[in-house]
Amino acid sequence: MKREQLIDQIRLKKSFLCIGLDTDIDKIPNSLLDTEDPVFEFNKKIIDATKDFCVSYKINTAFYESRGLAGWTSLIKTFEYLPKDCFSIADAKRGDIGNTSEMYAKAFFDPGSSGMSFDSVTVAPYMGADSVKPFLSFEDKWVILLALTSNQGSKDFQFLTSDGGGMLFESVLNTAKEWGSDENMMFVVGATRGEAFLTIRKHVPNHFLLVPGVGAQGGSLDDVCKFGMNQDCGLLVNSSRAIIYASSGEDFAEAARREAKKVQQEMAAWL
Amino acid sequence: MKREQLIDQIRLKKSFLCIGLDTDIDKIPNSLLDTEDPVFEFNKKIIDATKDFCVSYKINTAFYESRGLAGWTSLIKTFEYLPKDCFSIADAKRGDIGNTSEMYAKAFFDPGSSGMSFDSVTVAPYMGADSVKPFLSFEDKWVILLALTSNQGSKDFQFLTSDGGGMLFESVLNTAKEWGSDENMMFVVGATRGEAFLTIRKHVPNHFLLVPGVGAQGGSLDDVCKFGMNQDCGLLVNSSRAIIYASSGEDFAEAARREAKKVQQEMAAWL
Repeated sequence: MKREQLIDQIRLKKSFLCIGLDTDIDKIPNSLLDTEDPVFEFNKKIIDATKDFCVSYKINTAFYESRGLAGWTSLIKTFEYLPKDCFSIADAKRGDIGNTSEMYAKAFFDPGSSGMSFDSVTVAPYMGADSVKPFLSFEDKWVILLALTSNQGSKDFQFLTSDGGGMLFESVLNTAKEWGSDENMMFVVGATRGEAFLTIRKHVPNHFLLVPGVGAQGGSLDDVCKFGMNQDCGLLVNSSRAIIYASSGEDFAEAARREAKKVQQEMAAWL
Repeated sequence: MKREQLIDQIRLKKSFLCIGLDTDIDKIPNSLLDTEDPVFEFNKKIIDATKDFCVSYKINTAFYESRGLAGWTSLIKTFEYLPKDCFSIADAKRGDIGNTSEMYAKAFFDPGSSGMSFDSVTVAPYMGADSVKPFLSFEDKWVILLALTSNQGSKDFQFLTSDGGGMLFESVLNTAKEWGSDENMMFVVGATRGEAFLTIRKHVPNHFLLVPGVGAQGGSLDDVCKFGMNQDCGLLVNSSRAIIYASSGEDFAEAARREAKKVQQEMAAWL
């Protein structure tokens, strides 16, 4: 998907909500457990119920890999079911030496090879340029690079002050933005870091940011919008557990729809 | 596998060779392409031919994921075929927030969930403690954390001097070694960084190091041993392409055996 198409979708739906399909087979309603692929059936119902209110779906690959072949099957089926007007994210946190990142890129971007063709994949920055660039050679595909994450452990290294000036996450932004452009790179910035968005926007005023951490992790949508929004919106705000597990009962899809609609309405007020 | 068992294997086989199964379907001999699972058949023949000379096999998951379901099938079958006396590594470079790293740990350590139970998995450090610790809660399983990698891109961030004193890779070593012990953590240190092993050994004198970059990437085994070996050997030196693609013809397995034996003999002289 091109940047312009994503912006059009945001304007059309008055939403910059991304819904995270972190689907845990131990948390889905009993009635689905008798179906051939309960995780896919759950995802399908969640997607049907929420697609009017979001512009993106993010599939957290860990939840699928953990179930081996059965999980990989659910992953591929879920990818195929994603609405084509939604920006699709393989949240895989990959990254390795060049010849290996080429293979990861094929896994998520080359349908002839893997059966999947997401719009984007999340990538970890530690191994540097040649671990990221192979993902950027695919047309209309995006790298979403980790910059400042939403978890407690982000404090271990991401805030270290480095000799380049600024903190490690700033070095990542400044170095990595040269590898691509705001047409094929985004950055992950956790919603739990409201104030840090000011710093982030000094370095990457135009890039889209993928923002996890609203919802179960406690980040504030208002802070994210106040400090992080730019003239093209520039935000995809993710919510996973707070939406897909809004109810643990048979009404999970309606509950997810209600929750997604609520977030969308808050977003509409900001746009 | 316990540390003592690994050390016993190293003494028994007079080898600290790890063979990387970065098996690319485009590089395997034509005669195998008619079989049901060419990648698995190739791996099987490579394993049979080389297992006397190595103590570890490392499966690079990217090469399997890139082929979707077929690749994931080859991955599981190859895992099952690995000799039980060899230390198995899922070279997956994973790492995410706590609840997600738990899922990645199940993917590689919990056979009841995923069908696989590797001895270890490679993990990226950028997201800090809670992205790594879930892997450490499995008995006799290891995290192999990226410290100083063998690729060009390692220069982008890993050598940044940080306010903790020392460079980023040193902060990673010093912070992360407290998360586990030399009984359940190793670190990745590229062979292309011979001189850096002196620095590494100041921080982690007792830990095992997984050393990629000998062979196709140009690292020197002698430098690695001279600067990196400790009283328990403390090294697993990986070679992938130089062994598995030693010949592109029908004699690939014999050629791999010859190459592995050659490396093992150099290693025996160092033990």
